[in-house]
Amino acid sequence: MSDVKPFLSDNAAPVHPKVWEAMRASDRADNPYDGDALSAQLDERFSDLFGRECAALWVATGTAANCLALSTMVQPHGGVVCHEEAHIEVDEGGAPGFYLHGAKLMLCADGHGGEGAKLTPDQIAAHIDPIRDDVHQVQPHAIAITQASEYGRCYSRAELEALSAFAKSRGLGLHMDGARFANAAAFLGGSAKEAAYGVDSLAFGFIKNGAMSAEAVVLFDPEQASLAKYRRKRAGHLQCKGRYLAAQILAMLDGDLWLANAAHANAAAGEIASGCGERLMHPVEANELFVTLSPEERDALRAQDFAFYDWGADAARFVTAWDTREEHAAALGKAIASL
Amino acid sequence: MSDVKPFLSDNAAPVHPKVWEAMRASDRADNPYDGDALSAQLDERFSDLFGRECAALWVATGTAANCLALSTMVQPHGGVVCHEEAHIEVDEGGAPGFYLHGAKLMLCADGHGGEGAKLTPDQIAAHIDPIRDDVHQVQPHAIAITQASEYGRCYSRAELEALSAFAKSRGLGLHMDGARFANAAAFLGGSAKEAAYGVDSLAFGFIKNGAMSAEAVVLFDPEQASLAKYRRKRAGHLQCKGRYLAAQILAMLDGDLWLANAAHANAAAGEIASGCGERLMHPVEANELFVTLSPEERDALRAQDFAFYDWGADAARFVTAWDTREEHAAALGKAIASL
Amino acid sequence: MSDVKPFLSDNAAPVHPKVWEAMRASDRADNPYDGDALSAQLDERFSDLFGRECAALWVATGTAANCLALSTMVQPHGGVVCHEEAHIEVDEGGAPGFYLHGAKLMLCADGHGGEGAKLTPDQIAAHIDPIRDDVHQVQPHAIAITQASEYGRCYSRAELEALSAFAKSRGLGLHMDGARFANAAAFLGGSAKEAAYGVDSLAFGFIKNGAMSAEAVVLFDPEQASLAKYRRKRAGHLQCKGRYLAAQILAMLDGDLWLANAAHANAAAGEIASGCGERLMHPVEANELFVTLSPEERDALRAQDFAFYDWGADAARFVTAWDTREEHAAALGKAIASL
Amino acid sequence: MSDVKPFLSDNAAPVHPKVWEAMRASDRADNPYDGDALSAQLDERFSDLFGRECAALWVATGTAANCLALSTMVQPHGGVVCHEEAHIEVDEGGAPGFYLHGAKLMLCADGHGGEGAKLTPDQIAAHIDPIRDDVHQVQPHAIAITQASEYGRCYSRAELEALSAFAKSRGLGLHMDGARFANAAAFLGGSAKEAAYGVDSLAFGFIKNGAMSAEAVVLFDPEQASLAKYRRKRAGHLQCKGRYLAAQILAMLDGDLWLANAAHANAAAGEIASGCGERLMHPVEANELFVTLSPEERDALRAQDFAFYDWGADAARFVTAWDTREEHAAALGKAIASL
Repeated sequence: MSDVKPFLSDNAAPVHPKVWEAMRASDRADNPYDGDALSAQLDERFSDLFGRECAALWVATGTAANCLALSTMVQPHGGVVCHEEAHIEVDEGGAPGFYLHGAKLMLCADGHGGEGAKLTPDQIAAHIDPIRDDVHQVQPHAIAITQASEYGRCYSRAELEALSAFAKSRGLGLHMDGARFANAAAFLGGSAKEAAYGVDSLAFGFIKNGAMSAEAVVLFDPEQASLAKYRRKRAGHLQCKGRYLAAQILAMLDGDLWLANAAHANAAAGEIASGCGERLMHPVEANELFVTLSPEERDALRAQDFAFYDWGADAARFVTAWDTREEHAAALGKAIASL
Repeated sequence: MSDVKPFLSDNAAPVHPKVWEAMRASDRADNPYDGDALSAQLDERFSDLFGRECAALWVATGTAANCLALSTMVQPHGGVVCHEEAHIEVDEGGAPGFYLHGAKLMLCADGHGGEGAKLTPDQIAAHIDPIRDDVHQVQPHAIAITQASEYGRCYSRAELEALSAFAKSRGLGLHMDGARFANAAAFLGGSAKEAAYGVDSLAFGFIKNGAMSAEAVVLFDPEQASLAKYRRKRAGHLQCKGRYLAAQILAMLDGDLWLANAAHANAAAGEIASGCGERLMHPVEANELFVTLSPEERDALRAQDFAFYDWGADAARFVTAWDTREEHAAALGKAIASL
Repeated sequence: MSDVKPFLSDNAAPVHPKVWEAMRASDRADNPYDGDALSAQLDERFSDLFGRECAALWVATGTAANCLALSTMVQPHGGVVCHEEAHIEVDEGGAPGFYLHGAKLMLCADGHGGEGAKLTPDQIAAHIDPIRDDVHQVQPHAIAITQASEYGRCYSRAELEALSAFAKSRGLGLHMDGARFANAAAFLGGSAKEAAYGVDSLAFGFIKNGAMSAEAVVLFDPEQASLAKYRRKRAGHLQCKGRYLAAQILAMLDGDLWLANAAHANAAAGEIASGCGERLMHPVEANELFVTLSPEERDALRAQDFAFYDWGADAARFVTAWDTREEHAAALGKAIASL
Repeated sequence: MSDVKPFLSDNAAPVHPKVWEAMRASDRADNPYDGDALSAQLDERFSDLFGRECAALWVATGTAANCLALSTMVQPHGGVVCHEEAHIEVDEGGAPGFYLHGAKLMLCADGHGGEGAKLTPDQIAAHIDPIRDDVHQVQPHAIAITQASEYGRCYSRAELEALSAFAKSRGLGLHMDGARFANAAAFLGGSAKEAAYGVDSLAFGFIKNGAMSAEAVVLFDPEQASLAKYRRKRAGHLQCKGRYLAAQILAMLDGDLWLANAAHANAAAGEIASGCGERLMHPVEANELFVTLSPEERDALRAQDFAFYDWGADAARFVTAWDTREEHAAALGKAIASL
């Protein structure tokens, strides 16, 4: 396997050495549960990062992070507006139905200004305003967006402002799925604050970006945070040895390792993109590339040891990670350009 | 803190060096999800250990392990018979209500031959037979027992045979909460097979015994196993980098590290017990001691740097672990004997 | 069957003639659903009756009424404090688990001043205060009491004031199961307002008291009412031809038929009680009697055509209804006195 | 209101005189609950009607009937394939999410041979086969079809055979929403058996067709039936005085009143259809008409006292019922023809 140039998934990337170090360093804790000294630092560290008061809880997966956050704002009889290709709709095995006790995902397609699986206020309004107050129809309680989106697109601060204002106008919560939040923040200039502007909650992903098993649920409303703590325990996500999860996250925050790792992955994606030209199905703003490639072309690339997934019949998806080697990215860009 | 002699909780124990090693060694995997090469070994390894066909899934907590297993045998309108002090009833923050969608925990107290939070067929029959087929009352679908029990008592093979036969006679599943299964197996002679005789599922705990974040759900019915896979994903417990969890479990199984660790903890508990005499509230069969101690006596012990929890007004709980130092155990036994 | 003197259940009573009349009179409605002219009157009619603003929704069963009301104040991760013999715990087939999405019933036994399945603040405090804010334990969100209680006991205004103040002090909702609310109100002097003093919601029963298929969920908080409307639809309890349910309830309210019917049943129960002496297990305050009777004595009564249920091995339960014939009640009282 | 010619909804129709009679006649029952003598007849009566063994339970609404039936074949982690305009998706306020504990509605659009909200095997296969056995995606457990469909179209015996065979081939249950099953059966030649060919369960509607508050859940699998009984109680749908619901259904079955009522409504719809020509958006096979009509044309009809709902911007929906007066239908047909 030594020759493989891996672009299958950022989940395949190893754990970052600094994360390993931090985990080893926390082998003994004063308190066995999340009251441990490391977990206790999270609220303050994230409040500093986002420049506003928040609470932060570790959980083992992005699915749990998204669902716990949503469960604090969506009642079982309500709904969550999201894109029809949102990860919570298509890739979480029905977890939102479980965590939200049967609440409904109310799906928007691209259009009304939305593209690349990004949502706009107009899109959402067209979907929910006609059914307002109709007791026969599920009413929305929240909006969920993905930063970066399922097609690697990022919401600018202006777009987030508009969504946040719209959500408030309709009495809805606004949640951000940030499985690749770091990549989005890196693209948007490096400010976590701007990249999560106006949201009520954020599932801040670390696992694809160098951690092993810790994501953070960040809640900007103290009442939500209290609910989330009980819901986390109830979901079997309060780990006995939570200190090891806290250690991972703290290591990622230290010296902005999260941002450096993401910038590296984005740069590698950019390098590949420079060879793709018209083949790019979406602008490359984070660490994913969706590239039009015929079956023969894909075969040709695989013959050169590039590993990646097909994306439907006529395209492929390439994902870079914090450990992507520059020469692999450069080689892939060239190989595509030469097809 | 260097002088503390810790008996608060086995959750406070560090990760075993061999577990660390195994985790580090799995930094790169062929396949990002649970199809990885390490996770793929689990079914066979546990089938060997138990001497019968089974499937095994990692999850991050015992709460999730118990609830996932139960969810494969209990429908939302059914119930689970358990002891009124069972961990699933008193310490899991309502997780069974969540995972089982509102199914009912049907509580038995000690009596009818049961003691130390252990259940007997007579006890259960007295509870469930009178309401059989009454549509106004929740009907049981499964029985949950804890090995070792919440008071550190172990079910013998004969007791398990009786429970298993009873469960079958009533059409019920039989689940075993094995947060301290290793300690029970060590007490019972070292055979995993005997210690889990006749059960349909087992939550096999590793975290208290040297692992970091991996428990195993062991399912002895292949149909259950298929359900559990979907339910795990749906509960947000399918970790992207599951290879690190598989690695922990495999390290614990290698050379029966799980058993050696548990035997060490049990021996330490026995050492302490030898100093407790009449003070012992329950026979010591695993790694927990419940000891009658007045507030003044507890103060005296704490003044000698022993750390432990109160157990009600007139007792204390001591827990040993895989890393308990023999001199600490011996000192504690002596200190209690000298009170 | 013409000689049977029926004391099995008030559910066996027929529909009152005035209720039949009102149903027939509503054969055509302007609007097919609950926006119909009859349903639209309910809020105002109940607000008048209770002397405070409320909303009222019809549903087909007391189980649904209780559960819908509770669902507006209890989140899935919370709990409901109730008596261990409360109807919601022992006779509703797990409906609270369903409607509350796995929330927990937190059971109190008699004691701390409570008797006959009535709760007191002291009892509840002893149960819930020790676990306050413990994330491993389900936290209470509401208290549910039954008026009249499962043993036919009534809460006085003073008792309700104390419970209501206690609930507020702990941030809990207070729900009243009023399957026999009319009988309690009749006992307490005829004021619906006093009999439901301080509660946040009431399941006001009409079916046992002369209606066919309509109970009222009465909600004293407008926000609860809005939630309950969506939850009713979601539970399949929004009937197409709801006008026929509204008609039943309005007929029961007209001229205080509900109170007259209940007073009749209570008087019949009192007549029977006068023959029971020391045999009464609970003071008779409503329309149920629990009477110590040996198997032979019960046989003797049945030989005289009295129909009733056994209550355990050494007692019987007798229930009177709006249509109980005075001569039947008198005969039963005499028959018991003569045993 | 005397001049209104009502075509708003069959829910607005009154209760049929024979149903009233039957209800009055059941004022006293031996047994208060569903073990009453009337309810006990249902299984046999429906088995006769369908020519195969089945169990039948009354419930108060079609929503509850659909959801209870589905709950016997769909686990919480599974899905139900249905049309994107299916009543369970768009008009039941999220009830399937509640009753199925978060299972997913997997939506098909018209196409692959399907039209008028009818499903075909090809359509369903295209939707579900590509995700088979993918643990990240909800797997289907059942198919739900509507007879007559949401656009008044009927499934022929041949179409049902194909769907049933397909469902079996994929291991899926097949449920039929029969809110207007009687109208479909009347269109298909009058055989209940043919109109429900091959389904595992049927929500058989009576309320729109002359009953007051009783639909039947018909279950062709005895195990399903047992589950449904517990689920009905748990959903608060087991009515104390269920004998009145049984009476309604038995009255509808007696002398095939259900079929006569539906045939009347269908004939009235046919009469109207004869005046609609090209304006018909769907062939008229039951008692609903979807007719292209401009706002001005709708105003003109309303000025003539015809009552009906708009259907989007450029159409209207007319519904006939068992009590539709022939002269009203004829007048409507003529009025449309004259526009």
